[in-house]
Amino acid sequence: METSALYTLLAGLGSALLVAMLMGLLFDRFRLPPVLAQILGGFLVGSILFPALEGIIHEGRLHLPDFTNATFEVTGTLGLIMLMFISGLEVREDELLRAGKKSLITAIGGFVFPLGAGLFLGYLFDWDLRQGLVLGLIMAPTSIGITAVTLVELNRLRTKVGVVLMGAAIMDDVMVIVAASVILTKGGVVMLFVKIVAFFLLIWVLGKYLMPRSAVAGYKLPLKGGGTAFVIIMCIFAALLAESFKVALVTGAFLTGMFLASCSIKERILQDVEIIATSFFIPIFFFLVGIKIETAALMKSGLLLALVIPVSMLTKIGGGFLGAWISGLKKREAFIIGIGAAPRLEFPIIIALLATMNSVFGKSEAQELFGMTMGMVAFSIIITPLLLRWVYAGDKEIVEVHDYKP
Amino acid sequence: METSALYTLLAGLGSALLVAMLMGLLFDRFRLPPVLAQILGGFLVGSILFPALEGIIHEGRLHLPDFTNATFEVTGTLGLIMLMFISGLEVREDELLRAGKKSLITAIGGFVFPLGAGLFLGYLFDWDLRQGLVLGLIMAPTSIGITAVTLVELNRLRTKVGVVLMGAAIMDDVMVIVAASVILTKGGVVMLFVKIVAFFLLIWVLGKYLMPRSAVAGYKLPLKGGGTAFVIIMCIFAALLAESFKVALVTGAFLTGMFLASCSIKERILQDVEIIATSFFIPIFFFLVGIKIETAALMKSGLLLALVIPVSMLTKIGGGFLGAWISGLKKREAFIIGIGAAPRLEFPIIIALLATMNSVFGKSEAQELFGMTMGMVAFSIIITPLLLRWVYAGDKEIVEVHDYKP
Repeated sequence: METSALYTLLAGLGSALLVAMLMGLLFDRFRLPPVLAQILGGFLVGSILFPALEGIIHEGRLHLPDFTNATFEVTGTLGLIMLMFISGLEVREDELLRAGKKSLITAIGGFVFPLGAGLFLGYLFDWDLRQGLVLGLIMAPTSIGITAVTLVELNRLRTKVGVVLMGAAIMDDVMVIVAASVILTKGGVVMLFVKIVAFFLLIWVLGKYLMPRSAVAGYKLPLKGGGTAFVIIMCIFAALLAESFKVALVTGAFLTGMFLASCSIKERILQDVEIIATSFFIPIFFFLVGIKIETAALMKSGLLLALVIPVSMLTKIGGGFLGAWISGLKKREAFIIGIGAAPRLEFPIIIALLATMNSVFGKSEAQELFGMTMGMVAFSIIITPLLLRWVYAGDKEIVEVHDYKP
Repeated sequence: METSALYTLLAGLGSALLVAMLMGLLFDRFRLPPVLAQILGGFLVGSILFPALEGIIHEGRLHLPDFTNATFEVTGTLGLIMLMFISGLEVREDELLRAGKKSLITAIGGFVFPLGAGLFLGYLFDWDLRQGLVLGLIMAPTSIGITAVTLVELNRLRTKVGVVLMGAAIMDDVMVIVAASVILTKGGVVMLFVKIVAFFLLIWVLGKYLMPRSAVAGYKLPLKGGGTAFVIIMCIFAALLAESFKVALVTGAFLTGMFLASCSIKERILQDVEIIATSFFIPIFFFLVGIKIETAALMKSGLLLALVIPVSMLTKIGGGFLGAWISGLKKREAFIIGIGAAPRLEFPIIIALLATMNSVFGKSEAQELFGMTMGMVAFSIIITPLLLRWVYAGDKEIVEVHDYKP
């Protein structure tokens, strides 16, 4: 390839990373998660800065990087794979079992209601079954990060409410991943079933017997970076294996994380992959998500968004409340759990992205869905801390404010 | 882009990393550095495995990844940038000054002789001045890694010989980088001089005032991975800045490392960038170097190699010996230093690569030069530990053998 093309691509990667990081810093001032910042950064560059620059310098002396180039696509996909791997690494089967019934019933409540609401909205819009289920899946996940930060600030993380909530959020992730694998798989019902069962059996055997041993052996190697390299290799091939069974890419990476979570060197793996992912691949992934958002589609998604925001908030809070209440918590506690489960962040975005890649929606509907997802995510992230502070405001307990640094 | 193309690229990256790591493991058994292993891995895949596979399955059902795709080129270049950054990070100006005259004179000896020999060989082959200088630069670097391992094994690293040698090797790196920047710059002599001076002034100001402060500030950010991300951003833009002044890409990255070497958080930066570089980008860089080697050119480089191997060994050992002897060491000590300075590894390969990118040689000559460089590097890496053990064999001192794990 031309060296000048190479340098333009390098400059593109460097700029994407720089914008993502600067936006992340800005958002941190307002205690908003970097993910939103990185997406907004990509959106601003793709929809405002670049069109403006192209207008001014249409002579073509400046080479703007082409963010649809394979290099960005691959780097972003590696970011997605690492993100899902890290999410999976935070799930431990044994802890999930111990988290117990209360969390499970809460998670089911917070999963079933949004999913049902998605189906219902899909029916109203005259969508097909799969499209309705995807909308439901977009509303169903729980991103516990912002709630955890708020609970720590309010000194309530170690309470019953906090513990049940954390367990439920993790179970919710697993349910969403499994459901996404089923819903997004292509083909007839029987083949679909066979493929999914075959994939889960295969990955389970690999994950139980091969993956943890390989990781431990990898970290004992006298080769610098060898252990982490083998973990990255496993993630990539597990993701491709999932894809070859027509199960979503992310499922393979997530499960790889889950299988390594009970490994003796889990902390070491987490630390190493996290530094690689957070300092390069993940910010670029979310920046590229932002690049893909089109202003026109964002505008058109207004009506859908106006419906989805209240529906997603009510079904998530209501579902979480019902689940927690049925599982034996007091009404007030259950209500707080419902609110705490309301934030959604990475997962809805990833599901909207996967639905686009799998052509569940037409091109323009997919763009609308994408815009709607961004709106819903942003709303839930901004409103939840306010709701949590409001609901705890009446408490008489003295509350120490901790300075949380994620 | 097509999702199937995306998966082929991901599979290509995963496979390259896997081959590089497995070869590294194999080579480690024979105490040979992973770099050679990764290059050989790329060569085997590109020149033996892929042609064989293409012969068998010419129906085209299997998609072999196209390693000339921009994705690989960019990933490899990031590996090169990180490699040079880490090399620079190991240079500390203040330690360089303290290492003192002995190391400096030794380094000059080991730099001037191979460079002169390169010019002389170039004259014999009827090459132009720049081509001769490039050949000299390929012979001039010192890769201290394998010598350090051997000296540790022989329990001689902390001796006078060891310390002078280490200092000289670092100074050699700096001289080679500066010389490469000058030699590879394009344009007339005056413009060339102005550009290089302007670049070094600019990068010195940035490096003295902006870079260390940005790095320290970056690591204090409440953003996960933020510090490392800012270091990566600095490396990329310093490399591109160098390139925009027509100075070699690698110089910018190397100098960024040098400027951060005296920073309070140097160890933290080294640890983080090293894990990113050694577990992903650097193995892929060297794998791609191997992919680029063509068997035919390798064969044709035989005559050149037959000349360069003795010339490079004699000038390096002789130059190091003369420098060290003039600087006041005993003849025997100086001889050992000469031998210890003989291994060459990353730098000659990088210079051959840069010369190709800058079209210093025609396409087929560049391939020959490349093959010759690999042969010279491999010979120097394999022979030096044997020479060192032989020269120390007569010693009466009791020598403990340490088990060195790099």
